[in-house]
Parts: sequence; structure tokens; C-alpha cells
Amino acid sequence: MSTDYKFEGWLGHDSKSVEGNMKWGEFEPKKWSENDVDIKVSHCGVCGSDLHTLKSGWGETPYPCCVGHEIVGKAVKVGSNIKHVKVGDRVGVGAQSDSCGECIDCKNGDQNHCSKTTNTYGDKYKDGSGKSYGGYATYARHPGAFVFQIPEGLDSAEAAPMLCGGVTVYSPLKNNGCGPGKKVGIVGVGGLGHFGVLFAKALGADEVVGISRKATKKDEVLKLGADRYIATDDDKDWSKTNARSLDLIVSTVSSGKMPLDGYLALLKVKGTLIQVGAPDGGELPNINAFTLIGGGIKVGGSAIGSPAEINEMLKLAADKKIHPWIQKRPMKDANATVVDMEAGKARYRYVLCNDE
Amino acid sequence: MSTDYKFEGWLGHDSKSVEGNMKWGEFEPKKWSENDVDIKVSHCGVCGSDLHTLKSGWGETPYPCCVGHEIVGKAVKVGSNIKHVKVGDRVGVGAQSDSCGECIDCKNGDQNHCSKTTNTYGDKYKDGSGKSYGGYATYARHPGAFVFQIPEGLDSAEAAPMLCGGVTVYSPLKNNGCGPGKKVGIVGVGGLGHFGVLFAKALGADEVVGISRKATKKDEVLKLGADRYIATDDDKDWSKTNARSLDLIVSTVSSGKMPLDGYLALLKVKGTLIQVGAPDGGELPNINAFTLIGGGIKVGGSAIGSPAEINEMLKLAADKKIHPWIQKRPMKDANATVVDMEAGKARYRYVLCNDE
Repeated sequence: MSTDYKFEGWLGHDSKSVEGNMKWGEFEPKKWSENDVDIKVSHCGVCGSDLHTLKSGWGETPYPCCVGHEIVGKAVKVGSNIKHVKVGDRVGVGAQSDSCGECIDCKNGDQNHCSKTTNTYGDKYKDGSGKSYGGYATYARHPGAFVFQIPEGLDSAEAAPMLCGGVTVYSPLKNNGCGPGKKVGIVGVGGLGHFGVLFAKALGADEVVGISRKATKKDEVLKLGADRYIATDDDKDWSKTNARSLDLIVSTVSSGKMPLDGYLALLKVKGTLIQVGAPDGGELPNINAFTLIGGGIKVGGSAIGSPAEINEMLKLAADKKIHPWIQKRPMKDANATVVDMEAGKARYRYVLCNDE
Repeated sequence: MSTDYKFEGWLGHDSKSVEGNMKWGEFEPKKWSENDVDIKVSHCGVCGSDLHTLKSGWGETPYPCCVGHEIVGKAVKVGSNIKHVKVGDRVGVGAQSDSCGECIDCKNGDQNHCSKTTNTYGDKYKDGSGKSYGGYATYARHPGAFVFQIPEGLDSAEAAPMLCGGVTVYSPLKNNGCGPGKKVGIVGVGGLGHFGVLFAKALGADEVVGISRKATKKDEVLKLGADRYIATDDDKDWSKTNARSLDLIVSTVSSGKMPLDGYLALLKVKGTLIQVGAPDGGELPNINAFTLIGGGIKVGGSAIGSPAEINEMLKLAADKKIHPWIQKRPMKDANATVVDMEAGKARYRYVLCNDE
């Protein structure tokens, strides 16, 4: 099967590309294999990682890059080895484009922890088939094992940002018992955190508490569905007055200056805080052994989610009619959108849309 | 019922008492209540916390103190409200002597995390009934809720150090899935850690790995029952060559300079490290967010164990015929024993014995 379409997208050529300097151009996708799926991109969410990649913030990016790993579109070509997708299906791709498929982690269904993972926006495929390009583009080609059906009833623009931002918080909620009988805190109510509030409610937690800095955000967070709000800059003695009240906290904050000890004081005995945001260099505030021992608590991390978790999350979102707060922007305005994202203007997730 | 016995023991009068200066003398136990049990002490283990208490290492000790919270002996007087012990029973007391009994943690069976807990060696009882005295003594009086039956078949001298040292590692092993199918590491093979090796084996872990600094300790640790040994000072690239090999690590080390990043690298994806040792001031080495996120791992803490866990552990020890490595010393030699303990000579736990 030949292709009558061209792979074109917004390319970053250097670290200045994050300042509104991506250039529209053609790119060479990975060499086709019968394990792959070509997708005509209809929507692509704008993730904080896109900005880090464009500016080489997490290590040198192999320019030219095309970022975007919250991709939804139509399958236009499907490898003969791929059985769960057919041409014409509405599908999506998240932040992971490939894994080795053979290690113990892949076999355990923890493909997101495979040490030979390939990200969707710049990594070279381990089989030498080329480089991975993201979804600020017309078309995208990715291994079918990381291409997901978008369930009926889920809007494409709303599904897109779930594929990275959504599952990054869904996975730790699900893996740490979020559900009936549990009280759950979400630190940082932004692109990731607002999904935390939505999914924690959808999973049936007894109480969901939004935790952010400013009191001015309270109404917005309650409107999202949170039962309670804590403003760490503005509520006096917030850590004491809310001590030992939460079973689980998912922290989406990526500042090394976050009041981590204060968050940990909010945990009930045997509670867990999962960090999904990574500060520059990864430096977390120091954790005191007595804090861990005194409460029998844990601090952990979580990385995106597995393919099984992505499918599970999409089904939950369709079943519970979850509507993330997104702002649609035309694909042609990708540069302006990246600049606005960098300026912190997203409420809470930009989604780039190609013309139908 | 009147008492025809006197409460006498080795009293610490100031921070120098740890240097072999405890004085034998009489003390006034808590005011008797029908919730209490008086124990004629036969054995008392010597715990690192005893030394910290004698020297006011964890805050000012309310001298005079009588330390020792790994107490075994015979019940000689039993309050009318206490149904699980009768006069003549062989019983034990651990590091916790009381809790409020009313808070959510007590009701959940997490009495060891009650914020109104009373330790066995110096705390004042919250009901105003007096001060708690430990087991370097002839007799001990403690609330029956924290007095345990010692199962038949378990030697008194061997049972004693389980009541604090043993349960401190048993609890995190049990609570974090140690058992068939799991590979478990024990960092620091000393008073606490040697119990870790024994209990992890008894709980049926597939592999138990002793982790300590010097290669010279290897034979000893394998003889204890460990399947494998890692010497962090002497094995080249120990962290890399053993990467992602363990499901669970219990760290009994209490140095702020421990190679925590190296230990964490030993964890499999979604693995857990539980810290039970507390460095001075509680300062742990800094933990990197990428380490937590990359492996989806957790770092937690655990504090002694609950009454239910102590009973469970004692039953396991009797059923599996666990024999800790202890060295018996006469109660009259308590001062010399404390000095030897401070000098790191214990292999692995001293137990003070009263004459029968």
C-alpha cells in the first residue's frame, strides 16, 4: 500500500523554537513496518514536556523535532500485524511510541517502565527504523502496540490530552487505591492536576481535595468537582489544620521549593504521596526519616501509564462522561499556543486542531 | 491484692548513665489500675533506643529512667479488666506501653501510630497514673493492652528482642508483601537487620539478600539464612550489577550518609524501600524525583508494630522455630552490656537475664 499523503508538521530546529520559532515543514517518518499505524492527525494536546523538548530542557533534543504526544486522529494505514485497529478507526497515541516488548517489565504490562522505551517526539527507534515524530503535524506513524482506540462518546479534542496528561495522574490514582472510602488530595491544579480532580471523582473517592497556592483559585477548583480546597500560600496553618486527613496525594507540582513536608503532614497513617512532576534536575526537598517513620507513610513516583491503563482510563472517561477543561487552537497557531502555554495561560490544556 | 515485691532496676540519672553509670535502685511504678499487669522480669533485650534514651539522644529524657523495652517475664498480678492474661502466664512487653485507644488509628489497629502513645521507658501516662519504667529491672508494670502472651516453644531470651527489634522489621515486611514470589533485601545486618533476614525467610520470600558494607560479613549473613550478600563498600559496581533485582528493601541503617540512591537502584519497577532506621535529626540523603518516577518506586517508613502484628510475629517465630542470634548477659552486668552495645560488639542482640 503506497501513501498519497505527506508527513508535515511544526519542526523545532533549535532551542529557540520554544519562543514561537517552530517552522512548518516536511519530515521523514520512521520506515514503515507491518507493526505500524499511520494516523491522520485531527487533534494534538500541548503538554509541558513539549516545551521542555523544544528547548532541550531535559537533555539535548535531536533536532529537527516535531513535538506533541497527545495525538488523536483517523487510522489511514494499518500494518498487517495489527489486529486491534482498522483503517478508518478513531485512534490515539500518547507519550510512548514503542518499547522492547521482551523485558520483564514489558511482559508484566509495565511497558512504560521498559528501559528501551521510545518516546513519541524525538527518540530513535531501537530497530533502526528511524526517528519518532510527534503530533503537531498532518500525519503520524507509530507502532500499533501504542495506538489506542478512542471509545465512542468521547470527544476527540477532549480525549487527546488524556493520552499523556490524563494517564499520568490516572495511573497513580488507580495503582494506589483511589476509590470509595478514600480521601484524595491533588497538589497543583493545572494541566495534570485538573485531570487528577476529575479522575479521582470518577473513581469514586469519598472526598477530593484540590491543593494549590492561591486562594483565588478556589472557586474554579470546586467547579471542577473538588469537594474541598487548600491554598498553601493563603490558608493559615493549612498543614496543621488539615493534618492526617488524606489517604493519598498525587503531586503534579514540579518546583523543587514545594512545601513537601507540609503535604506529607496531610497524609493519614500509612498514606501515600505520589510525585508525578519532576523539578529541574529532579531535586526534591529533603525528606525527614522521622516523617516517614512516624506516620508509616510512603513517597513514590509514577511515570505516565501503561497501554492497559490508557485503555482503562479512556473507557472510564467515556462511561463517566468526563469533560476536561480544554481550549482548542487551530494547528496553524501552534507557535502562539506554545508561547501562551509557556506563559502559564492554559486553563487547563490547549489542544491543537487540524481542519477537517 | 497487695504486692509483696519491690520495683527495682538500673536507673539512669543523667546523660552519663550510658557510659556505664546506671545505678541500681528502687522506683515507683505507675499507679495500679485494673487494666494493668505486673510482670516479674526474667529477660530484657538491649535495644539501640535504650542508649539514645540514657544519653538524651532523642530529646531530654525525664530522669531517673529505667530503660529496656524488650521485656519477658511472668505475670504476677493481673488487673480484673484484663482477660487475655492470667497470673503465672509467660508474657512480654515491647516499646509501646499505652495508647489512647480512642483515636481513629487505635481503632484501625494502628496503635503504634497513635499520637498519644506512651513509650515503655520514660513517658508519663496520659491518665496521670505516673511514669513508665522499663525492663532493666526486677518487676515491670504496664497496661495489659500492651502485654503479650509468649507462645509455647519460644525461648524467653529469644522472644525478648523480638518485641521491639523483631517487630520493627517484621511489620514492614508483612505490610509490603514479603512472601512467596518476592525478592527481598535487608540493608544493615545487625540487631534489627538480622531479624529481617530471619523473618523474610520465614515469610517465604523467594530470595533474601543481606546488604551491608563489608565483604567480611558475608559468611555470617549467609549462615543466618540469606541467599545472597551485597557488600556496598567492597563489591565493585554493586548497584549496577544488582539493578532492578529486588521487590522490597527494608533499610535498618541509621546513617545519613548511606548510599540511598544505590539501594533504590536495586528495586524492581514498582518496588518499595522502607526505612526503619532514623539518622540523627532524621536527615536522609536527598531523593531524586526522576529516581522515584523512572522506576515507579516508593520510599516509606515504618514504626515498630501494632499489638496484632506482635502477636502474629510471635506465633510465626514459634511455628517456624526462628532462633535469633543473641548473647545472654546477667542483669547485674547491665552497665557493661550497655557499654559493649555502644561499642558495636553485639552479635546481634544482648539479652539481660535475671536469676530465676
